Amino acid sequence: MAVLTRINSDEVAILLIDHQSGLFQTVKDIDVTALRNNVAALAKVAAIENIPVFTTASEPNGPNGPLMPEIHELAPHAVYIPRNGEINAWDTPAFADAVRKSGKKKLIIAGVLTSVCVAFPSISAKSEGFDVFAVIDASGDMSPLSTQITTARLALAEVVPISTAAVLSEIQKTWHRDDALEYASAYSKVMPPYQALIESYQKAVSVGKGE
Amino acid sequence: MAVLTRINSDEVAILLIDHQSGLFQTVKDIDVTALRNNVAALAKVAAIENIPVFTTASEPNGPNGPLMPEIHELAPHAVYIPRNGEINAWDTPAFADAVRKSGKKKLIIAGVLTSVCVAFPSISAKSEGFDVFAVIDASGDMSPLSTQITTARLALAEVVPISTAAVLSEIQKTWHRDDALEYASAYSKVMPPYQALIESYQKAVSVGKGE
Amino acid sequence: MAVLTRINSDEVAILLIDHQSGLFQTVKDIDVTALRNNVAALAKVAAIENIPVFTTASEPNGPNGPLMPEIHELAPHAVYIPRNGEINAWDTPAFADAVRKSGKKKLIIAGVLTSVCVAFPSISAKSEGFDVFAVIDASGDMSPLSTQITTARLALAEVVPISTAAVLSEIQKTWHRDDALEYASAYSKVMPPYQALIESYQKAVSVGKGE
Amino acid sequence: MAVLTRINSDEVAILLIDHQSGLFQTVKDIDVTALRNNVAALAKVAAIENIPVFTTASEPNGPNGPLMPEIHELAPHAVYIPRNGEINAWDTPAFADAVRKSGKKKLIIAGVLTSVCVAFPSISAKSEGFDVFAVIDASGDMSPLSTQITTARLALAEVVPISTAAVLSEIQKTWHRDDALEYASAYSKVMPPYQALIESYQKAVSVGKGE
Amino acid sequence: MAVLTRINSDEVAILLIDHQSGLFQTVKDIDVTALRNNVAALAKVAAIENIPVFTTASEPNGPNGPLMPEIHELAPHAVYIPRNGEINAWDTPAFADAVRKSGKKKLIIAGVLTSVCVAFPSISAKSEGFDVFAVIDASGDMSPLSTQITTARLALAEVVPISTAAVLSEIQKTWHRDDALEYASAYSKVMPPYQALIESYQKAVSVGKGE
Amino acid sequence: MAVLTRINSDEVAILLIDHQSGLFQTVKDIDVTALRNNVAALAKVAAIENIPVFTTASEPNGPNGPLMPEIHELAPHAVYIPRNGEINAWDTPAFADAVRKSGKKKLIIAGVLTSVCVAFPSISAKSEGFDVFAVIDASGDMSPLSTQITTARLALAEVVPISTAAVLSEIQKTWHRDDALEYASAYSKVMPPYQALIESYQKAVSVGKGE
Amino acid sequence: MAVLTRINSDEVAILLIDHQSGLFQTVKDIDVTALRNNVAALAKVAAIENIPVFTTASEPNGPNGPLMPEIHELAPHAVYIPRNGEINAWDTPAFADAVRKSGKKKLIIAGVLTSVCVAFPSISAKSEGFDVFAVIDASGDMSPLSTQITTARLALAEVVPISTAAVLSEIQKTWHRDDALEYASAYSKVMPPYQALIESYQKAVSVGKGE
Amino acid sequence: MAVLTRINSDEVAILLIDHQSGLFQTVKDIDVTALRNNVAALAKVAAIENIPVFTTASEPNGPNGPLMPEIHELAPHAVYIPRNGEINAWDTPAFADAVRKSGKKKLIIAGVLTSVCVAFPSISAKSEGFDVFAVIDASGDMSPLSTQITTARLALAEVVPISTAAVLSEIQKTWHRDDALEYASAYSKVMPPYQALIESYQKAVSVGKGE
Repeated sequence: MAVLTRINSDEVAILLIDHQSGLFQTVKDIDVTALRNNVAALAKVAAIENIPVFTTASEPNGPNGPLMPEIHELAPHAVYIPRNGEINAWDTPAFADAVRKSGKKKLIIAGVLTSVCVAFPSISAKSEGFDVFAVIDASGDMSPLSTQITTARLALAEVVPISTAAVLSEIQKTWHRDDALEYASAYSKVMPPYQALIESYQKAVSVGKGE
Repeated sequence: MAVLTRINSDEVAILLIDHQSGLFQTVKDIDVTALRNNVAALAKVAAIENIPVFTTASEPNGPNGPLMPEIHELAPHAVYIPRNGEINAWDTPAFADAVRKSGKKKLIIAGVLTSVCVAFPSISAKSEGFDVFAVIDASGDMSPLSTQITTARLALAEVVPISTAAVLSEIQKTWHRDDALEYASAYSKVMPPYQALIESYQKAVSVGKGE
Repeated sequence: MAVLTRINSDEVAILLIDHQSGLFQTVKDIDVTALRNNVAALAKVAAIENIPVFTTASEPNGPNGPLMPEIHELAPHAVYIPRNGEINAWDTPAFADAVRKSGKKKLIIAGVLTSVCVAFPSISAKSEGFDVFAVIDASGDMSPLSTQITTARLALAEVVPISTAAVLSEIQKTWHRDDALEYASAYSKVMPPYQALIESYQKAVSVGKGE
Repeated sequence: MAVLTRINSDEVAILLIDHQSGLFQTVKDIDVTALRNNVAALAKVAAIENIPVFTTASEPNGPNGPLMPEIHELAPHAVYIPRNGEINAWDTPAFADAVRKSGKKKLIIAGVLTSVCVAFPSISAKSEGFDVFAVIDASGDMSPLSTQITTARLALAEVVPISTAAVLSEIQKTWHRDDALEYASAYSKVMPPYQALIESYQKAVSVGKGE
Repeated sequence: MAVLTRINSDEVAILLIDHQSGLFQTVKDIDVTALRNNVAALAKVAAIENIPVFTTASEPNGPNGPLMPEIHELAPHAVYIPRNGEINAWDTPAFADAVRKSGKKKLIIAGVLTSVCVAFPSISAKSEGFDVFAVIDASGDMSPLSTQITTARLALAEVVPISTAAVLSEIQKTWHRDDALEYASAYSKVMPPYQALIESYQKAVSVGKGE
Repeated sequence: MAVLTRINSDEVAILLIDHQSGLFQTVKDIDVTALRNNVAALAKVAAIENIPVFTTASEPNGPNGPLMPEIHELAPHAVYIPRNGEINAWDTPAFADAVRKSGKKKLIIAGVLTSVCVAFPSISAKSEGFDVFAVIDASGDMSPLSTQITTARLALAEVVPISTAAVLSEIQKTWHRDDALEYASAYSKVMPPYQALIESYQKAVSVGKGE
Repeated sequence: MAVLTRINSDEVAILLIDHQSGLFQTVKDIDVTALRNNVAALAKVAAIENIPVFTTASEPNGPNGPLMPEIHELAPHAVYIPRNGEINAWDTPAFADAVRKSGKKKLIIAGVLTSVCVAFPSISAKSEGFDVFAVIDASGDMSPLSTQITTARLALAEVVPISTAAVLSEIQKTWHRDDALEYASAYSKVMPPYQALIESYQKAVSVGKGE
Repeated sequence: MAVLTRINSDEVAILLIDHQSGLFQTVKDIDVTALRNNVAALAKVAAIENIPVFTTASEPNGPNGPLMPEIHELAPHAVYIPRNGEINAWDTPAFADAVRKSGKKKLIIAGVLTSVCVAFPSISAKSEGFDVFAVIDASGDMSPLSTQITTARLALAEVVPISTAAVLSEIQKTWHRDDALEYASAYSKVMPPYQALIESYQKAVSVGKGE
């Protein structure tokens, strides 16, 4: 049956799992700068829309390293929930309970590694009845092959693979809103060529004005 | 259940969304010359078959830039419908209504970015009961990874990913028709090596004739 | 529902569509030498097992060029069925009827271009109730992106994507048969590194024998 | 219907099929060192958890070569079952019976070539009612295209594509266990950058301690 | 000793060798559309500056096919010199003599295949004392590896590898000239993204003007 | 004869040519974010060491767009010299004179496009006796092939190809200096993985301290 | 000083070194089928022109495996010279002496691995005053990076990197000769797309003739 | 003038510079496992031949991390020389003096990053009259583009780019020596497919013996 779920900002929570500086060094399917920028954009949009954000880290005192600081800087309302060794964050009762108590029935999940830290809680949450979106380009894995494998597994589980740009746009819905500039700032993280586009545009308009 | 929908020219409308010069600069999953040629071929075939075409653009007075002019040049019957800031063209009542009023139940959709401007209206239309074909290589996205993610999402939604060449051929059906040469001209846009093939062929036939 | 269909030699027919020298020049998703070798291996195995083979070509007197001769050389029992301009071979009554009259309910289809010449008859035959296998690496398309798009479309149609090596092995079933060497010869077309493997092996055995 | 099957160590058996030195030379979709390391990690984890392991080889006295020795070294409890020429290991009664008698209802399968030695027994076992996971990066095939084709076929068959890292993590479940270091050693095979990560970490901690 | 030769339009002749439709089908180091566009741009600039152009073809009545027609269309003053089977065009006395009689001491050479049809006459002419520039991206070869090999061979021969864009710009010298628009039109062939750039610019200027 | 020239901060001037937002959209051999970061790092180091910087732009009121603003922000002492249509900046008397008057005999040149805006002034300056370093990854060109061609041309001219990281390090010479942190900040632009490295290190040191 | 050496058939000897089935399995910079075809084409042309060919193998009774048989089949006059463990074939007195006694002053060398079996004897022979051509695509190495490194080393040694197609054409010189068809057959090994080109051509000529 | 320098074990010293766990995380032009294996092989061969080895590290107490331990484990005679902040190891008097005092006139240099830690001391040593070999695949850099740039710079400086396999073979000279097995063990690090080759060979010999 066709999976047609859409995202509205008041229905979703965002789960950002194990975006840690050590784990980033093992990511080979996406440029880490792009990955961090995409995660930061999700955090920023969550702050704009007041979407609940839950973060967690795997053994942050060990080689996996600390959580990237941008998330909590950009989304000060995000809640960090420590784990007691569980690899699947959903196996940590405090984490799953926090998500359940948010009352949101649709989850947007990103993390490192995609095949583990995203796939496991995605399937667990789906099994409990949540609609789940896995943000593949705000996540990272050990190889492009691993990402391809994991995307196929998620599709079989009817977890919806989605891009960061799609999450942002699906939440924003329209440019006809007062906080449009805040969204523009979030996009500028996700789409680097847009910066040169704006520079060229502004200059050309100013030429048109005879400035 | 197997999705076996086919395309007949009298059943379809074509939606070409946000093919704008600024957005083209952000496309990294396909050569932009190829992308423009594919879009032009869709426009040309729509003109041959009198298939309804609906175009729209996202903020064309801003950095996203103007619509590529080839579409309305090649398909003068195409209808342009402005939007009021909505990111999902289907959220623009005038746009969705125009499509509904065409009476066509199968939609062929292309646009830039694939993950946003194609995926959102595709899923919206599918939810309303339309059969939807997403022309991936007449669309463009920020990265090959994003295209791979979006193709998986569309498949989950039972939106059919399709190539430009397949759309053209499925509409043409046979070379045994009076306007076959017009189709040949459309293909020459989509398949550049075919040009050299025809040159070689004509020369060799002429050698055979002893010319 | 899981698609679990397997191939037995007495249940299948093989359809080889538009493997023409001109069209080969437009193929960019696979090395054409490998493509031709894979098609030849299918023909050879069809001859070994007496599997019905139906070939056809699109406008072979024009730039698309003649059918590759290896097919009918290796499978002299193959039946060539001309078309009258139809792009979808299944739309040629003589072609579809020949396949129907073979009495086989499972079809193995390969051709050039994958997105057109393979996809269209595959979906048509599937709609009529056949089980269909599309041999992607005995087919060719204009770009890797087009192959990726088409594989997704075929999967939605529950047409099974399959590799040439898998077709050969699934038909052969066991090495414990009198004609095993004929199969070995077919594989040598499909797997070039195997040639060096055999050379190394034979030399080493002979070293072991003190020769 | 969503495929949501998870892996628990007491429910699964591992089938390692045709990981032979000759066949390795035909693998082009993954670096063979990585492939062997991934297979070794599966063997090691099977030993830790006492998961039944069944190995087999295709004509190991011929050019396909001997089984990689690491499997039985790391998993001394693994059972090797010879075949009598059958290409699909599941067609060897002794092999399929051994798996059935293990009483496990979920199978983790890896092998070379993916499109043949993994795909055939995966589909056979799925047809008998087993849940099957195909470990794509502990398997190898003749080309990336062949892997892409096979992943699509497996997904249609509702065989779950999975990465080695995901299998390990899904079995381990938590770092809060006495044998965590044994798992760490298994991961070090699968994730080479982790070695440098640990070295850097230990040095920095020691700097912090003023050592 | 440093090779510091520059190009001035009154010192050079352009040699375009074996740009034939059949040979184009063997080119794998550059997209053939881009290759043809680059050759066409050289022809156009030669026409603007009245630079002598010499063309020739290898066995144009055979499978190599006819010369691409754009050259003589865009540079009607170009001189076509047939060969009598010689592979190195410089070995055809009529060809080398025509070049010598032009009185130009610097040669710009492009052709298909780079490793043969460009490399041989480049080295021959260099041996006679000409300064030679080999336009690698207005030429084509059988593989990227072959291009890399040939670039190294040319450098050893002190034949200067150069890009089409560099040839155009080095001849044009300044935008402060009456025929600047003709150059702009030549560049638009060589640099496809520039088309969208101009569209965006013109629209933005017009927005600035309040149009 | 071996070219062994080294860089000392008091001997060099830096020429940054045509780093404009429109031209950036035509760059395909390097990620534009990386390119801008590399240019910014050169500017920053020039400011630290008070190295003369000369910038210029090609038709900045047209589609080529305005100069990237980071250069003059980070190097407020940089001198912008307008051109009057000359493509080779060295052909603009005011530009070449400014460089000559700086008294520096070694030039570090970067720009867009490499094959034109870097290659031409590099060869002109080399012809006048300057030692020239061309910073390839602080420059951009239309294709990787074009960069490969241009690198070969520059080497023939004994212009030294160099990376941004090498320029920075060759100027810095030692970490044993008071302004080492300013250099660290410049490197962080050029080497994105270094950010995660520092985060991991600081955390691990703090773990070692028992914090 | 410019290296302008050309090849004439009566001046050269061909050295084919260590083209062994085991070593082929370690080659990663070129498809092994292409490599073998290129070597075979060199052997065939040597036979046509009666160019001396010297072959040798490194430990052919060990894992390196036997020499590819095509060489001596196609060039029955080739002389095989065994080695006594020397890695650089030129260090084997019998090998170097045989080459010296051939009286040829220009050597065409190919082998596996390029960085060892080609580079060492190339540099040794060059040191003795021979002109040396290294046929990079009739040789193979462990990685594309290794080939790039080795090409640079050879260029520094003024050993000329060359492609197989260039060697063939430089020896053939003209199509206006009685044995042109034998050359055509040699090229068909080296340029696979040419086969389809000929098929298309012959069919089109026959269409032209009204056959 | 042709650079024809060869390597003999008694003429060389090996310099291994900044192979540190932190810096490894910034390497993107070669797989780090391969890089470490190549460095280890150099160390092992140095131990076999008693070639002087000098190591050094850049700020090993900071984020750059500790030296990879394999070097000093495999080459216990290697001498570690600390630096006082100098980026170019040759600028550290103790380092350059140690090398000079070794009396060796040919240096084999590898390190991370190639463009800095290898290029700078290579050019410095070359300026002092040493012959220098830069082992590119036992070194690592931030991008393949940076490696390509640096290889060109080194070639201009007549520093010889070389592969690890070539260094090993050039030192070993012959398999006809008592310690051949030690070399075989060093190669097995550098050439992973060789492991499967040996396994296949030994099995086949044993089959030949009837074992």
